[in-house]
Amino acid sequence: MTALDRPIYLDYASTTPVHPAVLEAMEPYLRQEFGNPSNLYALGRRAADAIERARAQVATALGCHADEITFTSGGSESDNLALKGAVLAAGRRHVVTTTIEHSAVLGAAHDLREHWGVEVTYVPVDEHGIVDAEAVVAAIQPDTLLVSVMLANNEIGTIQPVAEIARAARERRVLAHTDAVQAAGILDLDVERLGVDLLSLSAHKCYAPKGTGVLYVRRGTPLVPLIHGGSQEERRRAGTQNVAGIVACGAALELVERHRPATVARLTALRDRLIAGIEAAIPSALLNGDRHRRVAGNVNVCLKDVQAETVLIELDRERIYASSGSACHAGAQDPSHVLLAIGRSPELAHTALRLTLGAPTTELEITQVLERLPSAVDRVRERAPVGR
Amino acid sequence: MTALDRPIYLDYASTTPVHPAVLEAMEPYLRQEFGNPSNLYALGRRAADAIERARAQVATALGCHADEITFTSGGSESDNLALKGAVLAAGRRHVVTTTIEHSAVLGAAHDLREHWGVEVTYVPVDEHGIVDAEAVVAAIQPDTLLVSVMLANNEIGTIQPVAEIARAARERRVLAHTDAVQAAGILDLDVERLGVDLLSLSAHKCYAPKGTGVLYVRRGTPLVPLIHGGSQEERRRAGTQNVAGIVACGAALELVERHRPATVARLTALRDRLIAGIEAAIPSALLNGDRHRRVAGNVNVCLKDVQAETVLIELDRERIYASSGSACHAGAQDPSHVLLAIGRSPELAHTALRLTLGAPTTELEITQVLERLPSAVDRVRERAPVGR
Repeated sequence: MTALDRPIYLDYASTTPVHPAVLEAMEPYLRQEFGNPSNLYALGRRAADAIERARAQVATALGCHADEITFTSGGSESDNLALKGAVLAAGRRHVVTTTIEHSAVLGAAHDLREHWGVEVTYVPVDEHGIVDAEAVVAAIQPDTLLVSVMLANNEIGTIQPVAEIARAARERRVLAHTDAVQAAGILDLDVERLGVDLLSLSAHKCYAPKGTGVLYVRRGTPLVPLIHGGSQEERRRAGTQNVAGIVACGAALELVERHRPATVARLTALRDRLIAGIEAAIPSALLNGDRHRRVAGNVNVCLKDVQAETVLIELDRERIYASSGSACHAGAQDPSHVLLAIGRSPELAHTALRLTLGAPTTELEITQVLERLPSAVDRVRERAPVGR
Repeated sequence: MTALDRPIYLDYASTTPVHPAVLEAMEPYLRQEFGNPSNLYALGRRAADAIERARAQVATALGCHADEITFTSGGSESDNLALKGAVLAAGRRHVVTTTIEHSAVLGAAHDLREHWGVEVTYVPVDEHGIVDAEAVVAAIQPDTLLVSVMLANNEIGTIQPVAEIARAARERRVLAHTDAVQAAGILDLDVERLGVDLLSLSAHKCYAPKGTGVLYVRRGTPLVPLIHGGSQEERRRAGTQNVAGIVACGAALELVERHRPATVARLTALRDRLIAGIEAAIPSALLNGDRHRRVAGNVNVCLKDVQAETVLIELDRERIYASSGSACHAGAQDPSHVLLAIGRSPELAHTALRLTLGAPTTELEITQVLERLPSAVDRVRERAPVGR
């Protein structure tokens, strides 16, 4: 089949294009408004004001106070700051998390164990990729400082019972953190309804550029910085702020939150059409993650008898961009820890294809992918069958 | 005096405007080239290629291998990663630094002491703001892991004997780190001639946007990440890279390095004219930092009998943007630790005015500042004399 005239991007969980309105909002801060926000003269004050407007936009999206928003360089830094910052600030030495967290949470937890002697309990998930809230709560010990459970999984899109977990954690005076990177623009991020003390976001997952993230820190939550130095960001994160990136982040969160109900309705319908189409055309396909408790826009299937990497190369030739799981591990030889956690074998895990839809995804794109994906899989299967 | 038609920016040590060529280089990565560099399809590979081109540009500027360059979110992160990363990776528990380092180095050192039980020796500087290389070397103990001495000071611009210190450190199997943030485009950054193992840079100090930094890590230097998670940046720094910012950083370092000899000659002459003009017109002015061993473009004077903050407000009204020292501490009540280190009293330190020149600075701007600064100081002195 010939390549498409226009590429079809179905990897919005990996990264998103910058929305034109977001680009427009940030551009002055890449040009004439280049002041250092720590400076007191007019040029610096305008940069500081722009950051505070962005902080207010993020706070509105999260239903929190502006002073509870810390801007970071991205979701991974936010996750690391949440876990390490909270543990370092407190005396307690036990953390509870799940087996399907993003590698930033798992990496931070591993570092806490390796270098700080912190104990970590990893609560498993069921075969649908959902963690049992009661099992998380049952893992809390007298020395537990923090529970970290992601709001939506980045590979299989499953939505976790964060509000229930956070409520129980707080009753036990344990902090609740959630990695909400995959939830922005899709799920309710209101920190009161979620009941969390710490929440991580990434700008480039919601139509702002790479290089900016958010950590919500509930008032009164002690946190030691990862980056020490100047007094920026209420002393939670030193270093001259990425003014343009922060402005973009604020504009993007306001934008996706405004369109959230319509986006979710539209993407849910497109996602379900894509899942049904794949299941009809590729009988071997096996959906990963709960069919309903998943974010709008996430499709993840094991193809069973073809390596996902090979299918992705075939799709790339036709200019369809998709993924085999987390972009942070693209090219890695290890099978996905998330797919292993839901009980897939390592062999099966290597056949997983992730297609993630975003606000720009069209009905036509889904039609075209459904026209092309089954034959691409067939061609790969004929050339390089697995386990035959 | 009426305000200037065009503002005069004399705070390049605080931050710089983005060079038009740098903006042009980065713009595709804010628009159509939005791929995640960790992805294997064409869109992702183009982003990854752009990062590797930028890495090569930085490596050329530093005379090192591309795989020795780690991109971070800025100079403060680079300093923190250098100090904490190296100490955490090694068993030795002593660090040597100076009393005039940037707050990111001092903050990281303080954190190492506070949370890691690492001992820190702070070597003083002389009244000219220069550290004695022999004194630094003499502070090395059997348990010393690392020596961190900045290449050029951010407040008073003094150039430190880093090559001499690094040579002696390496003979003793001690790592040498230098914060070279203020030296980019001004001093030789060749890591072989400097002999350092770790070197920090910040993109926004050399005509790229805020939000990107560089840490040079000599091959074979063990380093524990600050940010754990994905396998980006050779596992030294997790998180999706700021592609546009990294592209800008590479383009900017190449640009400033190409024009370095001409820039240094021109700015040195303008700087010396500005110093001479201030000393002639404001007899109380007292130059901070060595007159000659200072970076081109740095002027820092104690005005003696007027608060710098008040003078800066007066200059701001005329649209002349300058600083009282480090932007990271603008508005802080504490006197500058650098000025105290060179023997200024706290009272005197509060009268320090920093004027820093950059590539766009013109002869006319210096003329205009020399016309306006003395009368601004006079007006402030009449209104609000200090210590009279």
